[in-house]
Amino acid sequence: MNKITELFRIRYPLIQAGMIWCSGWELASAVSNAGGLGLIGSGSMYPDILREHIRKCKSATNKPFGVNLPLIYPQMEEIAQIVIEEGVKIVFTSAGNPKKWTGHFQEHGIKVAHVIANVKFALKCEDAGVDAVVAEGFEAGGHNGIEETTSMALIPMVREAIQLPLIAAGGIASGRGMMAAMALGADGVQIGSRFVASEESSAHEMFKKCVVTVKDGDTALTLKKLIPVRLIKNDFYLRVKEIEDGGASREELMELLGRGRAKLGMFEGDTQEGELEIGQIAGLIHEIKPAAEIMDEILREFEAVRLQLSGMRF
Amino acid sequence: MNKITELFRIRYPLIQAGMIWCSGWELASAVSNAGGLGLIGSGSMYPDILREHIRKCKSATNKPFGVNLPLIYPQMEEIAQIVIEEGVKIVFTSAGNPKKWTGHFQEHGIKVAHVIANVKFALKCEDAGVDAVVAEGFEAGGHNGIEETTSMALIPMVREAIQLPLIAAGGIASGRGMMAAMALGADGVQIGSRFVASEESSAHEMFKKCVVTVKDGDTALTLKKLIPVRLIKNDFYLRVKEIEDGGASREELMELLGRGRAKLGMFEGDTQEGELEIGQIAGLIHEIKPAAEIMDEILREFEAVRLQLSGMRF
Repeated sequence: MNKITELFRIRYPLIQAGMIWCSGWELASAVSNAGGLGLIGSGSMYPDILREHIRKCKSATNKPFGVNLPLIYPQMEEIAQIVIEEGVKIVFTSAGNPKKWTGHFQEHGIKVAHVIANVKFALKCEDAGVDAVVAEGFEAGGHNGIEETTSMALIPMVREAIQLPLIAAGGIASGRGMMAAMALGADGVQIGSRFVASEESSAHEMFKKCVVTVKDGDTALTLKKLIPVRLIKNDFYLRVKEIEDGGASREELMELLGRGRAKLGMFEGDTQEGELEIGQIAGLIHEIKPAAEIMDEILREFEAVRLQLSGMRF
Repeated sequence: MNKITELFRIRYPLIQAGMIWCSGWELASAVSNAGGLGLIGSGSMYPDILREHIRKCKSATNKPFGVNLPLIYPQMEEIAQIVIEEGVKIVFTSAGNPKKWTGHFQEHGIKVAHVIANVKFALKCEDAGVDAVVAEGFEAGGHNGIEETTSMALIPMVREAIQLPLIAAGGIASGRGMMAAMALGADGVQIGSRFVASEESSAHEMFKKCVVTVKDGDTALTLKKLIPVRLIKNDFYLRVKEIEDGGASREELMELLGRGRAKLGMFEGDTQEGELEIGQIAGLIHEIKPAAEIMDEILREFEAVRLQLSGMRF
């Protein structure tokens, strides 16, 4: 038992990130059934779709699961209502101020973890009384902090600053990464990219194939004048880079981005014109597998590394 | 004993990075005397100055020490000759192709480690027959790879790709960081920023004071159209950022940069107009201390974390 397994009443301190277009009820329930914490990624769901996913998840597992809620969601009030009505017990909030929603959810018996990318917001989480903090490094896929602090630097700094249960995210896809996060001071890990390339992920098959073939250096944090986002370097990215290098304004970038590119890439499988959000650690992911096998592999490597490190005396 | 302590005949697998303007004979010999491997940073030294530092280092320690050689050094032939003449036993090469110099040094009984920032160059190191590889992540201070791969992602990918002794660099300033690097697959660590803020470092006092006060988010990787370099966000950096955001060309950036800004900032102490090269992990560094105390602190934390992790079973 540790702080995270106790808090969420799960067997392993391993959380599957709630990701747009990739993590619906199938993935979340598979991870929860395997002893981790599965999260439904609400960021790409209309309210009705989210309700459906929560219901299906409840039928697919009797283990704890959660919902990831980006607080910039336009229908946040409605979404919060659905989460409460459906009896969800855990939410992971991101992209906003933790003070706004934490108390409301907790009054309804919901545990709240909040995602941050710097020490300042980690302290705000403590003030807001969240139950756990997710510290996400620069190497993570998708939307990311402007400070560009990596997991290796961020986790020990957040650990030093706050006492709350701490979940490390960004750059973790293996038992080695999980152990490194624990060494840095985390109580648990949140893993995204590895589960994109799972059988239960709702990512398009073409996107999954990209994930298992990309190497180090094939992703970049881009669109920094809008909201920074880590993407695979495809044709769309190269066009963004070209105009960014030429000094493009926010407006020009918004025009090039247009609407629906994340769905186009990750859900509809247009791997050149869509946004393909994935972490740097995709370079370590080589095979699409069932979520339970992924969990098992990570946890077995974690145990092997533990034994190795325990003999490391100088 | 492990691969790194055996290779360099040192007690702890902890290497102090060879850094321009910060690591002369005083720092290198202090680290070597404390059981690590001290490196003289030749990148900011004229050939005669380097010879003097090597000689002083030899008088100050009977333990192994090394020299860091950026292979783009304009007087590289002369520098190599000095290193060989003075009987240096270990060199760390960087910023170039490992094939060019490795064999030459090894013929003179010198062990060669080469610094890389991607898997492709790690494989080149293996081909070139280097004795050890230093994998340096995006969070590191100073000049950096263009792929922006962080230590958390880079180390396990390099570990998977090559069999050579592996030294992790970037984001490490504590026992937690050292243990994390070992968990990720490293055999040793190279630590830079932490030793900038040591008493024996030749950095200007004003620069040292900056290092112990910066927080997370206070550094940035910049000048990416020239050679990417991680700097503290001072007035000079802000002017670079402004023209970069406006789409400045290489030529405009070179003009703004001018000459001698690294010396101006790090050695002469102009903390607003100089380049202040430091890693993100500076946010975890709070006090200027003797190098031996820094070593002791890191190694004691490493041991405490080892004990903690050894009981972490799920």
